[in-house]
Amino acid sequence: MGTALLTDHYELTMLASALRDGSAHRECVFEVFARRLPKERRYGVVAGTGRLLDALTEFRFAEDDLEFLRSAGAVDDDTAEWLKNYRFSGDIDGYAEGELYFPGSPILTVRGTFAEAVLLETLALSILNHDSAIATAAARMVVAASDRPLIEMGGRRTHEQAAVASARAAYLAGFTATSNLEAGRRYGIPTTGTSAHAFTLLHDTEKDAFSGQLAALGPGTTMLVDTYDITAGIRTAIEVAGPELGAIRIDSGDLGVLAVQARQQLDSLGARNTRIVVSGDLDEFAIAALAVAPVDVYGAGTAVVTGSGAPTAGMVYKLVEVEGRPVAKRSENKASRGGRKTAVRRHKSTGTAIEEVIYTGTPEYGEHDRLLQIPLVRSGVKADDVPTLPKSRDHLEKALVSIPWDGLKLSAGEPAIPVVFAS
Amino acid sequence: MGTALLTDHYELTMLASALRDGSAHRECVFEVFARRLPKERRYGVVAGTGRLLDALTEFRFAEDDLEFLRSAGAVDDDTAEWLKNYRFSGDIDGYAEGELYFPGSPILTVRGTFAEAVLLETLALSILNHDSAIATAAARMVVAASDRPLIEMGGRRTHEQAAVASARAAYLAGFTATSNLEAGRRYGIPTTGTSAHAFTLLHDTEKDAFSGQLAALGPGTTMLVDTYDITAGIRTAIEVAGPELGAIRIDSGDLGVLAVQARQQLDSLGARNTRIVVSGDLDEFAIAALAVAPVDVYGAGTAVVTGSGAPTAGMVYKLVEVEGRPVAKRSENKASRGGRKTAVRRHKSTGTAIEEVIYTGTPEYGEHDRLLQIPLVRSGVKADDVPTLPKSRDHLEKALVSIPWDGLKLSAGEPAIPVVFAS
Repeated sequence: MGTALLTDHYELTMLASALRDGSAHRECVFEVFARRLPKERRYGVVAGTGRLLDALTEFRFAEDDLEFLRSAGAVDDDTAEWLKNYRFSGDIDGYAEGELYFPGSPILTVRGTFAEAVLLETLALSILNHDSAIATAAARMVVAASDRPLIEMGGRRTHEQAAVASARAAYLAGFTATSNLEAGRRYGIPTTGTSAHAFTLLHDTEKDAFSGQLAALGPGTTMLVDTYDITAGIRTAIEVAGPELGAIRIDSGDLGVLAVQARQQLDSLGARNTRIVVSGDLDEFAIAALAVAPVDVYGAGTAVVTGSGAPTAGMVYKLVEVEGRPVAKRSENKASRGGRKTAVRRHKSTGTAIEEVIYTGTPEYGEHDRLLQIPLVRSGVKADDVPTLPKSRDHLEKALVSIPWDGLKLSAGEPAIPVVFAS
Repeated sequence: MGTALLTDHYELTMLASALRDGSAHRECVFEVFARRLPKERRYGVVAGTGRLLDALTEFRFAEDDLEFLRSAGAVDDDTAEWLKNYRFSGDIDGYAEGELYFPGSPILTVRGTFAEAVLLETLALSILNHDSAIATAAARMVVAASDRPLIEMGGRRTHEQAAVASARAAYLAGFTATSNLEAGRRYGIPTTGTSAHAFTLLHDTEKDAFSGQLAALGPGTTMLVDTYDITAGIRTAIEVAGPELGAIRIDSGDLGVLAVQARQQLDSLGARNTRIVVSGDLDEFAIAALAVAPVDVYGAGTAVVTGSGAPTAGMVYKLVEVEGRPVAKRSENKASRGGRKTAVRRHKSTGTAIEEVIYTGTPEYGEHDRLLQIPLVRSGVKADDVPTLPKSRDHLEKALVSIPWDGLKLSAGEPAIPVVFAS
């Protein structure tokens, strides 16, 4: 499906005006950055880059797109004619997906004519703002869960396509699986799920339900035991499936207390290897609070797909350079600096990050430092070696280990490392 | 594009289990409702129904869908065979799009076999939870804006497809236009937009930019005057376009103060009919605070598309009846009541709503009362007379007028009218 109309009207009117007065062909640099991290968070996670590169290949104006744009008064005939052959032919550099970012980090740099580059604003921001918000929240949950696996199951609480992207962002952040089937198909993310309360309620008894599930899914399945009475539910589950039952799931109540009781009961029934999955309004704080409970797997839903209080990353797409000349809106905010930027993250010899330095000139870096931008698009074509989703996932895992310990705290605070502008 | 994989894995495993033990063909009733309104809001707005009915017609399992489901272990061969011919053939009733809802309102009622109806959970909830959250937030902004027009321009802050749905939900709620072009094409919503700061920065001077815009878009256009100095920007805009300039837009700073200054300056330049558009992090509270400022049009973005602090409506899809027998999960929450429900909104003879009464038996209603559910799907086919988007928009406008005055307050509070369960 084409992506060119996932765009704001004003980009087309700007294009029309710029084509008419000749400024459309000036070489420009646009940058994506966030002025601040949401909710005093300590880091942000770049996500969506892979999706953006996919969407870019579909960013073409078909005849019916142009017909609509003309009828909506968004373009004149000359602009429509120009759009007919539109294809982005410039260059894009950016932070790798799974990279940490901080206020002012030049997350994406788009170079091309004004005409070609201005059109990408909405698509780039929609994807990066959404996916980065989800990945940032998800990463906090992964940190809170420590070594325990997390399943993303929030698709029912967000737009049906945002659900797919959310599953992808959560997986990037370290979640182990998703409930969302389309995310499984589209991105190769492991999918999982067994039953809801409806399945138990459908049957005349809980025992009938568990027997039906066992027959179809085998003893390795997860049985949802809190439809009626949890203690009775666990007893029935083990009675039906035997002590080899894969897992039970508890989806309501005081999960810490219930997990302890369930563990004791399961152990007393000889089901020592039966795992305990908990779900139900878990966010990073609830997950952290369950650290001492005998929980094996967390299922997180609403909080993941809504960014746990920060549903958008607040990134902006700003023109920073026109034909080599730095430009910037007048602002008291020092983050609005003109000129194309690059960034270096400095590390101690131990690998711990110290600071991020943003350059408008030539970046300087030593053996423990890292240039943060990589080539993403060259002359309109996706660059070689853009990391895959699994590689980006590994990258984030390592990046989270690299920031100072304080930076992983869940509480509100300063960015994990300072961002310094080198002039 | 098919919608069948926009579904959680567990729905397929439940189906597989239920097909195997024979319970899949039991006649069931599922209900969508919200246990509470988000953030102590006083009403919710039902939205997404039209999108859901569209998505339902595409809910089919194609061969490659089934291939994926088998490979993911979500279905066995028998289940895949059954899914091959799947098409929902049951009935759906629900609140009309644009109807107000309250805690426990039976927003959607799906009747069919367990097999047919359970599969719709994720799709129904994703669409209704997202769109209702956006429409509810948007309606509060419309109330706050009183008679002034509102433009939705938040697409850059949410998932690229959620952006389209958000524009639709905002329009339903009473917004007058959107910046999102795809929403214009897909749903016939008026689109609008003129220029961003980038357009001014692209040019050597602000005057060049305004001249270029004027030449392309004519004097009725809206000029963005806050790239450098607002007073100078307004002077230049009127100098270039004359006192017939359509509007100026201010996107930053203390909008109330700036609007007063801008109005005075415009009037002094003879541009008495040039309108003032303000934008920049406006939510319902900021809009309300500008009531006394000489603002003509509001542009709202992030707050609309993120539900202004409540990005999901928290609706659930619960099995409430199996072969005529009411069923419910054990819960201390009285809202989890078994049995198929209908609802009546009672009104005074003046038209003011008094209460919402939920029936599991036959509903009783008088001449000033209204049955809240309408037929949406009959035997799998969209019912006649399902309201169009413009009709739903009118419906909401009237519904907002019908609730007691207190219910329109922006502050946290009780639901605008009480919900009563008639047994």
